Amino acid sequence: MEIIKHPSEMQKFAISAKRKGKRIGLVPTMGFFHEGHLSLMRIAREHADLVVVSNFVNPTQFAPGEDFAAYPRDFERDCRMAEDVRVDVMFAPDKNDMYPEGSRTYVEVEEWGKILCGVTRPTHFRGVATIVLKLFNIVQPDVAVFGWKDAQQFLLLRRMVKDLNLPIEMIGGEIMREESGLAMSSRNTYLTLDEKAEAVILSRTLSQAKRMIIEDGITDAVTLKQFIRGEIEKTKHGRIDYVEIVSMETLEGMKVVKKGDTLIALAAWFGKTRLIDNIRF
Amino acid sequence: MEIIKHPSEMQKFAISAKRKGKRIGLVPTMGFFHEGHLSLMRIAREHADLVVVSNFVNPTQFAPGEDFAAYPRDFERDCRMAEDVRVDVMFAPDKNDMYPEGSRTYVEVEEWGKILCGVTRPTHFRGVATIVLKLFNIVQPDVAVFGWKDAQQFLLLRRMVKDLNLPIEMIGGEIMREESGLAMSSRNTYLTLDEKAEAVILSRTLSQAKRMIIEDGITDAVTLKQFIRGEIEKTKHGRIDYVEIVSMETLEGMKVVKKGDTLIALAAWFGKTRLIDNIRF
Repeated sequence: MEIIKHPSEMQKFAISAKRKGKRIGLVPTMGFFHEGHLSLMRIAREHADLVVVSNFVNPTQFAPGEDFAAYPRDFERDCRMAEDVRVDVMFAPDKNDMYPEGSRTYVEVEEWGKILCGVTRPTHFRGVATIVLKLFNIVQPDVAVFGWKDAQQFLLLRRMVKDLNLPIEMIGGEIMREESGLAMSSRNTYLTLDEKAEAVILSRTLSQAKRMIIEDGITDAVTLKQFIRGEIEKTKHGRIDYVEIVSMETLEGMKVVKKGDTLIALAAWFGKTRLIDNIRF
Repeated sequence: MEIIKHPSEMQKFAISAKRKGKRIGLVPTMGFFHEGHLSLMRIAREHADLVVVSNFVNPTQFAPGEDFAAYPRDFERDCRMAEDVRVDVMFAPDKNDMYPEGSRTYVEVEEWGKILCGVTRPTHFRGVATIVLKLFNIVQPDVAVFGWKDAQQFLLLRRMVKDLNLPIEMIGGEIMREESGLAMSSRNTYLTLDEKAEAVILSRTLSQAKRMIIEDGITDAVTLKQFIRGEIEKTKHGRIDYVEIVSMETLEGMKVVKKGDTLIALAAWFGKTRLIDNIRF
């Protein structure tokens, strides 16, 4: 596996590979890999000749007071894990090379960045869209793979790709879960054992809500959201940020769930750690 | 010359040309060509194997009440003129194909879009940056040519290209002028004969200001701006929007002009027509 640090070197490498007819797959990450990341790399491996994983904790998607400095990092371990799933290039730029002095260009997917996670993190998706667009321009992928764990991120980036006419196929990889059902996340390392045990409620209630729809025919969004909120509120450490049921097409709230287009998404704090999870059908 | 109407067809054409190793040059325009446009096409011709001219009056860079509907158009004539300077492809999309329902992604070069022309046209440069980024993604140019007439636009887009890591060489083509000195513009057709005669003051005072700097050693920005304003204020139909002296590197106002980095830019209405002009050194 090749490790490339500089954006212009990465871009030269990518353009040269494309000239040779290679199909490039990109998995953008912030590192500290778990099985979720690896599953995305495996998907990219199936869809591309050359798999590039970017490993960059992007400062512009963290607000002051968020966990940019504390975000877990282990580059050596990441490299070993990526190599094991046959990644070709690890692109790990420096933040001063990604945002040189004078940078002032940002991309916004309007309104979609201000709802759901955007309510408590109003500048987050602007940072995400901008860094991903930069990575796309540097790595020149034909296909990009993102996790459905960050459902709003995936839908917003897919919208951006369409709106900006980028010739990139967007693939979403399924959420990887621990045995307990807890969605895998680099941030799970922040949880105490007690919090981690309790946080299982998120995936459990989402599954229950899905069964309520399919088995009991309950399709009223208010009823479903109240059920989910009630379950999380019973925990000792859990504090709800949001529980929403929206259309994946428009991101607008749904009154009645509709098969094929429904996203039930939530965010909750357990102690100081903010976790997200979702289910779709 | 090939005429392509649909963005996806244009993109397919461009990607296929690049695979064959062709270097693509793009000249983005809003049509109604004059010698200024043609000069940019000739520059592109020198720098590329395949010259694409986009011809699209972009709605998102006009505010309500501006001249989107009135903007002059003559597609047949444009095609003949482009063909004469050996353009390979005229890309003339429909606005519903460029902005399909649900589009909501915009690019902003922050602060730079709110000064100079951005004061009276606060949403203009957001529209310009977005459409140009879309055109770049569709046409996949190696080199793009813009006119220095729209100096702020050129500097802002060059900043965007750098900030977003686009692998595109940006070339600025010199301002083309009528014999009187008036900068060529599709909007000059709006002027009455009286207004047009008076509007010559813009280029004349800019040239005089440059001479004052070079020959008389006057480098104080306030003095130079006052001179320019005074000359325009003497006219019957002219009304100043702004006269500014800024660094081309930072777009910040300069107190003292500095060789190699100075832009003197102005905008003024003559009757109902807003004209811009500038000089650099």
